[in-house]
Amino acid sequence: MSTDGLLDEFVAAIETRLDILLPNASEHSKELVEGMRYAVLNGGKRLRGSLVCATSYTLSGSYERALNSACALECMHAYSLVHDDLPVMDDADLRRGQPSCHKVFGPAMATLVGDALQPLAFNLVLNSDDIPSEKRLEIAKVLSNAAGWQGMVGGQAWDIQLTTNTTLSVEELRRLHAAKTGEFFLAAVEIGRIIGEERQDDEVIAGLRRFGEYLGEAFQVVDDVIDCSQSSDTTGKPVGQDARLGKQTFPVLLGMNEATSYAHELLGNALGELEQLHFAESVLADVAKRCVERIN
Amino acid sequence: MSTDGLLDEFVAAIETRLDILLPNASEHSKELVEGMRYAVLNGGKRLRGSLVCATSYTLSGSYERALNSACALECMHAYSLVHDDLPVMDDADLRRGQPSCHKVFGPAMATLVGDALQPLAFNLVLNSDDIPSEKRLEIAKVLSNAAGWQGMVGGQAWDIQLTTNTTLSVEELRRLHAAKTGEFFLAAVEIGRIIGEERQDDEVIAGLRRFGEYLGEAFQVVDDVIDCSQSSDTTGKPVGQDARLGKQTFPVLLGMNEATSYAHELLGNALGELEQLHFAESVLADVAKRCVERIN
Repeated sequence: MSTDGLLDEFVAAIETRLDILLPNASEHSKELVEGMRYAVLNGGKRLRGSLVCATSYTLSGSYERALNSACALECMHAYSLVHDDLPVMDDADLRRGQPSCHKVFGPAMATLVGDALQPLAFNLVLNSDDIPSEKRLEIAKVLSNAAGWQGMVGGQAWDIQLTTNTTLSVEELRRLHAAKTGEFFLAAVEIGRIIGEERQDDEVIAGLRRFGEYLGEAFQVVDDVIDCSQSSDTTGKPVGQDARLGKQTFPVLLGMNEATSYAHELLGNALGELEQLHFAESVLADVAKRCVERIN
Repeated sequence: MSTDGLLDEFVAAIETRLDILLPNASEHSKELVEGMRYAVLNGGKRLRGSLVCATSYTLSGSYERALNSACALECMHAYSLVHDDLPVMDDADLRRGQPSCHKVFGPAMATLVGDALQPLAFNLVLNSDDIPSEKRLEIAKVLSNAAGWQGMVGGQAWDIQLTTNTTLSVEELRRLHAAKTGEFFLAAVEIGRIIGEERQDDEVIAGLRRFGEYLGEAFQVVDDVIDCSQSSDTTGKPVGQDARLGKQTFPVLLGMNEATSYAHELLGNALGELEQLHFAESVLADVAKRCVERIN
């Protein structure tokens, strides 16, 4: 079956659903609600949300029930970007081609915008009434682990302790990114699987997990390469940021060419996992390719 | 039945459980984990956690199953204090008699400490295996609403927009505090009820809800009075902070004497609700009194 256009359909459906699910008005905290919408509805690629939809679709032929969870992951990701960009963190003025949240709403309100997006993400999952309670509970657990001290925030904390030009080995850098970025990719695949799968299948669980790991790392290597090589007009965020902050990245440790090859190797591994599961022609493969093709 | 010592037993049990549930070590984000422990295990009064235990105990005669949720609420409360104290927010140097989290760990790490405590709170609720799944789902929903844009963060956002000496009516101030502080008290009572109650009883739900509303407001009025009248040695946090930030408070709007009377009136109303439910002699009454007695 052709998957032409399906990935774009996911992105459009996520965008529409986010617009509905995000709060629209508040009597007393108007700026907070505006900030939340600004942070989320600013033209992200929706790769994590698409991954939730694509996994559910590949397993069950439908993605409708996955949309709330896809939006939850996008809200969680948006919160992490808002806090990452704060003056006390990366101090980044641009995000997705627009002034970052704190440039528009100030750092205090931007802190609160991030703080509010996090419980909203849980709320969206918990209130997905078209998913059985037990599964909703599992999804919320995956989300809480991926977002917590063992996952994304842990990676971020590790990262900010490194800015004074500590030298990492490639293996350490891989583990840093596994926490900071990889956990959300893994969570996306895991959540899509929980929604789409009727019964637990150990082979599918393990194969999709490896797929998610390869893909998360590929995405991060690509991000690092882009930060080193493309203009701010193309990326919509400040570039050369990593070098400015003295951050260790794959191009710094491996060189540009080798980092680029490594990204393609990881994509190949991810697609290999799909092949093993007979999902080589699925929309999951399309998501994987989209994660890496930005590099060219 | 006497409730002597029961409230202190809750506080001690919450303290012990928090020590167990908080992460203890991390290979790569040592400061994050230390910051989380510092922010939570610093001798808070555990009023919100106690309220969860007391409600469960009053309805079911047991509080053991309520401990994880009590800890979750304490983690959520601790995160809100860490972010409130940040330089971009209230810029407070002291909290519970010790340097605030960002004074010890820096504002970037303190931001992450708060960010990590929030998913931990959800995690604790979601993994309370001694509570049926349906109830865990309900508890997590209550938590996500209380912590979100409609609740605590919404109140906080409203509050920071007011620091330029806007004048509020008493009614507006009540609504501000209902969001910022009251929602967590209400959530504590609601969560304790979900855990302790076998069947839904509309009279109990409504009565406990009114009790939680009165108590949350009483607590905030007391907090305002203390900020105006006691020394930093007694409160363990900077005092006169509200006046410095030009914040509207109950003593500012009503005067000290009337604000104090109002707190006692609210306590009376809260206890009246308990009486209606035949809980006048319960440990819930002890928690309520403890919330207000700090004023003397």
